[in-house]
Amino acid sequence: MEQKAEKIQRPIVQALDEILGTPLKVLDDGFVRVIDYMGSDESVVQAARVSYGKGTKKVNEDRGLIRYLLRHAHTTPFEMCEIKLHVRVPMDCWRQWIRHRMANINEYSTRYSLAIDASQKTAPAEWRLQSKDNKQGSEGFADATLGSALTQREQELQDLARAVYNERVERGIAREQARKDLPLSTYTEAYWKVDLHNLLHFLSLRMDDHAQFEIRSYANVIGHEIVRRWCPIVWEAFIDYRLRGSAITRLEIDIIRAIQTGNAEKAREVAVKYGLLPPPGQEIKRNREREDLEAKLALLNIPIPWK
Amino acid sequence: MEQKAEKIQRPIVQALDEILGTPLKVLDDGFVRVIDYMGSDESVVQAARVSYGKGTKKVNEDRGLIRYLLRHAHTTPFEMCEIKLHVRVPMDCWRQWIRHRMANINEYSTRYSLAIDASQKTAPAEWRLQSKDNKQGSEGFADATLGSALTQREQELQDLARAVYNERVERGIAREQARKDLPLSTYTEAYWKVDLHNLLHFLSLRMDDHAQFEIRSYANVIGHEIVRRWCPIVWEAFIDYRLRGSAITRLEIDIIRAIQTGNAEKAREVAVKYGLLPPPGQEIKRNREREDLEAKLALLNIPIPWK
Amino acid sequence: MEQKAEKIQRPIVQALDEILGTPLKVLDDGFVRVIDYMGSDESVVQAARVSYGKGTKKVNEDRGLIRYLLRHAHTTPFEMCEIKLHVRVPMDCWRQWIRHRMANINEYSTRYSLAIDASQKTAPAEWRLQSKDNKQGSEGFADATLGSALTQREQELQDLARAVYNERVERGIAREQARKDLPLSTYTEAYWKVDLHNLLHFLSLRMDDHAQFEIRSYANVIGHEIVRRWCPIVWEAFIDYRLRGSAITRLEIDIIRAIQTGNAEKAREVAVKYGLLPPPGQEIKRNREREDLEAKLALLNIPIPWK
Amino acid sequence: MEQKAEKIQRPIVQALDEILGTPLKVLDDGFVRVIDYMGSDESVVQAARVSYGKGTKKVNEDRGLIRYLLRHAHTTPFEMCEIKLHVRVPMDCWRQWIRHRMANINEYSTRYSLAIDASQKTAPAEWRLQSKDNKQGSEGFADATLGSALTQREQELQDLARAVYNERVERGIAREQARKDLPLSTYTEAYWKVDLHNLLHFLSLRMDDHAQFEIRSYANVIGHEIVRRWCPIVWEAFIDYRLRGSAITRLEIDIIRAIQTGNAEKAREVAVKYGLLPPPGQEIKRNREREDLEAKLALLNIPIPWK
Repeated sequence: MEQKAEKIQRPIVQALDEILGTPLKVLDDGFVRVIDYMGSDESVVQAARVSYGKGTKKVNEDRGLIRYLLRHAHTTPFEMCEIKLHVRVPMDCWRQWIRHRMANINEYSTRYSLAIDASQKTAPAEWRLQSKDNKQGSEGFADATLGSALTQREQELQDLARAVYNERVERGIAREQARKDLPLSTYTEAYWKVDLHNLLHFLSLRMDDHAQFEIRSYANVIGHEIVRRWCPIVWEAFIDYRLRGSAITRLEIDIIRAIQTGNAEKAREVAVKYGLLPPPGQEIKRNREREDLEAKLALLNIPIPWK
Repeated sequence: MEQKAEKIQRPIVQALDEILGTPLKVLDDGFVRVIDYMGSDESVVQAARVSYGKGTKKVNEDRGLIRYLLRHAHTTPFEMCEIKLHVRVPMDCWRQWIRHRMANINEYSTRYSLAIDASQKTAPAEWRLQSKDNKQGSEGFADATLGSALTQREQELQDLARAVYNERVERGIAREQARKDLPLSTYTEAYWKVDLHNLLHFLSLRMDDHAQFEIRSYANVIGHEIVRRWCPIVWEAFIDYRLRGSAITRLEIDIIRAIQTGNAEKAREVAVKYGLLPPPGQEIKRNREREDLEAKLALLNIPIPWK
Repeated sequence: MEQKAEKIQRPIVQALDEILGTPLKVLDDGFVRVIDYMGSDESVVQAARVSYGKGTKKVNEDRGLIRYLLRHAHTTPFEMCEIKLHVRVPMDCWRQWIRHRMANINEYSTRYSLAIDASQKTAPAEWRLQSKDNKQGSEGFADATLGSALTQREQELQDLARAVYNERVERGIAREQARKDLPLSTYTEAYWKVDLHNLLHFLSLRMDDHAQFEIRSYANVIGHEIVRRWCPIVWEAFIDYRLRGSAITRLEIDIIRAIQTGNAEKAREVAVKYGLLPPPGQEIKRNREREDLEAKLALLNIPIPWK
Repeated sequence: MEQKAEKIQRPIVQALDEILGTPLKVLDDGFVRVIDYMGSDESVVQAARVSYGKGTKKVNEDRGLIRYLLRHAHTTPFEMCEIKLHVRVPMDCWRQWIRHRMANINEYSTRYSLAIDASQKTAPAEWRLQSKDNKQGSEGFADATLGSALTQREQELQDLARAVYNERVERGIAREQARKDLPLSTYTEAYWKVDLHNLLHFLSLRMDDHAQFEIRSYANVIGHEIVRRWCPIVWEAFIDYRLRGSAITRLEIDIIRAIQTGNAEKAREVAVKYGLLPPPGQEIKRNREREDLEAKLALLNIPIPWK
């Protein structure tokens, strides 16, 4: 690699520049907006090519390279892009968000300033019911009558919480203590800066169907509205390989191989050996690993030998 | 360094083993307890000596080495010790705690399980007044009448919040959504695992007088009750160099040098040059950097030339 | 989760204690040995259950939980285990190793001490030929004649390098500069401390067939000799899901679905649409993404429609 | 903080744009050049003010705020600036550099490509002698005769190493193995991306007098040529507080207080109590902690009571 003495300019992404600073609405009173960014699709290529000791090539080869890198988990070149967002988000949702440690964060301080006077409110039609199957999920919605009652009670609680907060502040109580009973639905704001690799990791977990609705709403906006504009080739590869791809285990590979030979009996034997099925004649009980396998077989149009 | 083939055992710290698993009470209903640990004072020495290619020496020299390392910010050997705590802490306090990213965390999930039925309660005598000087601090306490009124209002709010939470759960609302208006005072629990270097950094910030009372209470227990037992030599050095030490700036060095020559006039000139004092004859206005300097001069028994 | 006041002890792993401190040989003069560890299979379960607010259960359920966590990328409980290794490794290999940033490291200092007087030597039968297909790989070995010649030249170079190093040191040159021309094959030693999650990530990359032989040799010893003893249930799940598992992309899912309907024509159409195959009638050129797919089809015993 | 809907632009730093892409020479054949950056002095202020819930103010107040943040170790706002450098550096120096883990890195791959055909060469006048006092330092230079002899031997060794490398490659040995005996003086190249907080930490350690000459040369160029242009207010504060500032320990504070009362006897007593001096009448032995104190007393023009 020779010393490149040429004068250069920072990469510019026109499509992202157009929405710089513009709040993209999320939930009832939240938003995400891009404050700054570093790099583009080409920066990923450039970083990979420093490894390979080569210069930039044709766009077509760039796309192939980016896809290769993401498919084979060569993740460091994606760290060469960075984005800074300004987000407004309920504290409950922020509690999940902040678990992603590889990011830089400056949050609005309710120690220094008065708490933001806004809480996430739940409309009557938005109350979700506890999932029966998934202890940490929801499914379906409460009916209109129940929904209205809950929304009214929520308003009552949020009003009291705000009144108590204001009383404390007015009586001279320190802000750091006055805030102690604010509801988790209170909005906060933050600058959140993260590299593209870690952002994709965040999105793969938080755009997932099992992510909670609220943070999933933010992740969808960040993915579909921001990353898609910023690094369109990376975004396409991410959808193809991470978001809509799947994983198959050693056990599943062995069972699919057996199924594909047309030998359903053999496939059942393998499943028994791996503890996914009981020995022949015994009742088939619930088994999460077998259920995962069955879902994948259905996805691939492969028949389930024991059904 | 030759290959040491000897059989070894894990370092054991008797004084810490004695409190393993024992909850150390913090605030009204919180605690910290040690679950596991790796290493000891000697592990810091051992790690430093791998760098130096030497074996262990006398305790006396070990102490000197540990103090040298901490005094000169050779921090990597301190990363060789690790501790795992189980903490119970109000969510408001946890929001500050979790900003320290270099730690491993598993928190109790109110998505999966019912929220812990406990909130931090403020006794009438514990309501702190907003600091006049420090926008993010408190000073003094509310009087008894006001304190009682505030405590009563707090109870009212926490009761309503819990009642609303219970109603939601009983009506079948998903736990992930039912929790959305819980007050920040609600207790949570977590496993928190961190290396000694990062723990000391946490303690230096959170045992500081400017840290909020609640997290300072946890930091004091972790420092004085746990680290002191675990790594007593490191702990002593930490107090001497980090907790009770100070920093002096280039500007302060120049001014102190001038003062020490006995030339107060020269010292004032330097302070003017650096913008800490106005030119002679003008009114002296508030200046935070000068105030920091004056505090240090007082600490060192050095006279302030402009007072 | 109630406050557990019981007295506890640190988890002990008998099988690992037996090899504590024992160097496990790697390459011609390298080793790995366990110095300390924190946690076990049960610590992963315990950390997951703090999230779920539940106590420990039966071993059988523990195994199911660990497998579930690893299968679904719930990685934080694995961070609750930590291990400290003492390694001796050629600097060339260490250059790759140290790219894994989420670890604590203390390396032998050739600034402070004399360089270790050992270099990795390549036996005549060990010289690997450049791979034709893989620009960053090797395949096959040089023949005996060439191998002998290369080994002899290597010895000559290593001897000169050591002689020059010794000359410098004897003439009083600073160690920090005397070392500047040491060959990358020179051994270094280090303490390397890492949590189980990051260790598994390291192993998934470095036990892979595409990893360079030298670091792969270390990874295999760490995996098969150390992690297998330390956390046998995690290790089994890691092999089943990560090491011997595979990933399938959105494109591959669509193509497999088409194949499984028995419609080879449709499958080819999809492959053309996705750019993996040229339009009918055109010559099939090399395409890495299609080659990846073909390898997976072969693995699953699924026929390749275009062959 | 209200929702700011205004259209914004990325911050631009004219003075840095002027040298974008321009290699700044370091050592005999190395360089550093800026590839991209995010943020400026104002971004630090902006991030701090999101915490305070306030908009931008006058430049004068910005300066005061930046200095306050750095003086009081409020470091997160500095993480909001990011810079990407392209560096060319001897592998020996890179081994130290890469120990700073909080950075993103893509290094030139000698597995994929031929090693860069350049080694750092030491001129006859540049051979440094081992320090007597500092086991990991150097002081003074070898005389011309010795220097010439060493340079000649170095050339001989580097020539042989390159010849052996070329032979291996020409005979078809895999690049990943051919490189194994390259001298540490061989140049490598990398993209290095880091946030301003971590960069300042790197500079505070590597611009220090005790840092090795080679990496200090890079650090000086990055600091004086790059950060000074990029964030001039931060840079000024960094010099005042970190680079040219000092730290004083609890022990030193107590001793200085005693000295300042004019009571040298008392100061000696305190020093004895703290183990920095032997009891009266005994011989004063070397003590690193006392030497550190004496250096600081000299710096501050404070008399040493025991000299």
